[in-house]
Amino acid sequence: MSPSNKIRIGITGYGNLGRGAEVAISQQPDMELVAVFSRRDPSEVTSSVPAVHYDEIASWQDRIDVMLLCGGSARDLPVQTPEIARWFHTVDSYDTHAKIPEYFESVDRVARENGRLSLISTGWDPGLFSMLRLLGESVLPAGRTYTFWGKGLSQGHSDAVRRVPGVKMGVQYTLPDHSALEKIREGTEPDLQVTEMHRRICYVVLQEGADAGDVERAIKTMPDYFAPYPTSVHFITAEEFEQNHSEMPHGGRVVRSGRSGNGHHQRIEFELALESNPEFTASAMVAFARAVYRMGREGRSGAITVFDVPLGMLSPRDPAILRKELL
Amino acid sequence: MSPSNKIRIGITGYGNLGRGAEVAISQQPDMELVAVFSRRDPSEVTSSVPAVHYDEIASWQDRIDVMLLCGGSARDLPVQTPEIARWFHTVDSYDTHAKIPEYFESVDRVARENGRLSLISTGWDPGLFSMLRLLGESVLPAGRTYTFWGKGLSQGHSDAVRRVPGVKMGVQYTLPDHSALEKIREGTEPDLQVTEMHRRICYVVLQEGADAGDVERAIKTMPDYFAPYPTSVHFITAEEFEQNHSEMPHGGRVVRSGRSGNGHHQRIEFELALESNPEFTASAMVAFARAVYRMGREGRSGAITVFDVPLGMLSPRDPAILRKELL
Repeated sequence: MSPSNKIRIGITGYGNLGRGAEVAISQQPDMELVAVFSRRDPSEVTSSVPAVHYDEIASWQDRIDVMLLCGGSARDLPVQTPEIARWFHTVDSYDTHAKIPEYFESVDRVARENGRLSLISTGWDPGLFSMLRLLGESVLPAGRTYTFWGKGLSQGHSDAVRRVPGVKMGVQYTLPDHSALEKIREGTEPDLQVTEMHRRICYVVLQEGADAGDVERAIKTMPDYFAPYPTSVHFITAEEFEQNHSEMPHGGRVVRSGRSGNGHHQRIEFELALESNPEFTASAMVAFARAVYRMGREGRSGAITVFDVPLGMLSPRDPAILRKELL
Repeated sequence: MSPSNKIRIGITGYGNLGRGAEVAISQQPDMELVAVFSRRDPSEVTSSVPAVHYDEIASWQDRIDVMLLCGGSARDLPVQTPEIARWFHTVDSYDTHAKIPEYFESVDRVARENGRLSLISTGWDPGLFSMLRLLGESVLPAGRTYTFWGKGLSQGHSDAVRRVPGVKMGVQYTLPDHSALEKIREGTEPDLQVTEMHRRICYVVLQEGADAGDVERAIKTMPDYFAPYPTSVHFITAEEFEQNHSEMPHGGRVVRSGRSGNGHHQRIEFELALESNPEFTASAMVAFARAVYRMGREGRSGAITVFDVPLGMLSPRDPAILRKELL
């Protein structure tokens, strides 16, 4: 802790998520941002605190309590987290679901050897959605869990749209299928593929001379990304694009539909509606940074996940106050 | 644990909640119900396991790992829990919100002195709703939390209806006001009193010769219970009553509406739709009994709440599997 008694936070990676973390920290009464670390030339980083080159990060270990890792899951985190967990307690939002077990192992080893605590894969999915999936199946063991995404902008699918020849600007929104949701709410626990639960809408600005029919066909037939889904493609002007499609909303819903022992239908739903996906992910990371700070002080080390954190650790408020006011 | 390697559970109090716990335990792969304790004559209790008089409960301490306390909050639990926490780890659903701090203290003292662990006030409110209130304000510190109840049968208000002279049978449902919910979803964080967020519907069977107008007036003007709420009263026959109003559905919704640092609106909603209120409350108690068993084995003692339990403790599954399949 700093002389001001605040938890000292560092941010590594200063894109949308890192900037979201900066504003999220400013909303917390018991935290202060100390420095931002980036591979870019620090003189080009305009943050509210000192920007430091990534190569100098180790020299900050006595000045930072928890490091938020705000790089990408594809290339940054698998390298950076095992490096940084030598020197700092860490929190990240690693979201390549299929590789979480091996990522956990690699971070766990380093953190444990160095007496650091690393909470991996928080945010909203993985993160809050994971917590609700676990809570749902634990309380209602006889049942099914469904996850819907959207309405929201999907970064990966937008990138795919932009790679199509003839596309100048493009964005893709994932939408939940409401008829699938209604079917689930009836309590019949239907078999539903992810492709039956979602549809996709693309907004595209064409390059000059590009053929709309060709572009639409190329998008709709793209394997994995679009072919298995009901997909629509809308062509708009660059002005419309910039006016209406520059934000990063997202959200979704986890539904547990089950039956208690006497056959009564019981349904749990958790919904997020987010005007800013990166700012919400960062807000979750920051709350979990408080838990990591506290659990680290208790001597805990190694890798952990949202499943290992008592919820009371997320709050700046005293446990007796939480019991009195929130229970 | 028993020779079968299952967590051995006891139930004290065998009304709707206790019977709900019995069926909830039967859905869990790693638990077994050992005995039911009641103040009634055991020969009148028809449970699937031995029924034992409450006075003999202490002699069962080596045969039970966790005791579920399924008595009422008004009279049973304040007496029974501090008694029973001498001999067993316990889980209860104490729900008199205003008295939780003193209840916590009285249970904590006994449990701590005797090396037992007592989780108080779980179920759905307090319980899952409390967890979501805490999660919401921790992740979105700038915002407001709203709790809606219903549609559901309210026991206390139904009792109040039945106390009105001229009422033969009566039931009351609490309903959320959807226009209040829509206002919240717009993101303006409106000031809303609980009386503006709910309305009440009563179904009444009149005693012979009773005056419907008098009964309706008596209900609608009852202070605290009905006077501050939009209330409607419907008169039905005893046959209709028994056919349509013998179940105990309930549910509700916790909404956190907040803004991240750059002013983006972020909304979290958690909804429960329950065909059986007591069975769901019991299902939550049973999942938390698993956590109490494990935390007790780790040497933890005293009183705790849902805020103190890592979610992973609720699941019978291995932590590595949870990370792989649910994160």
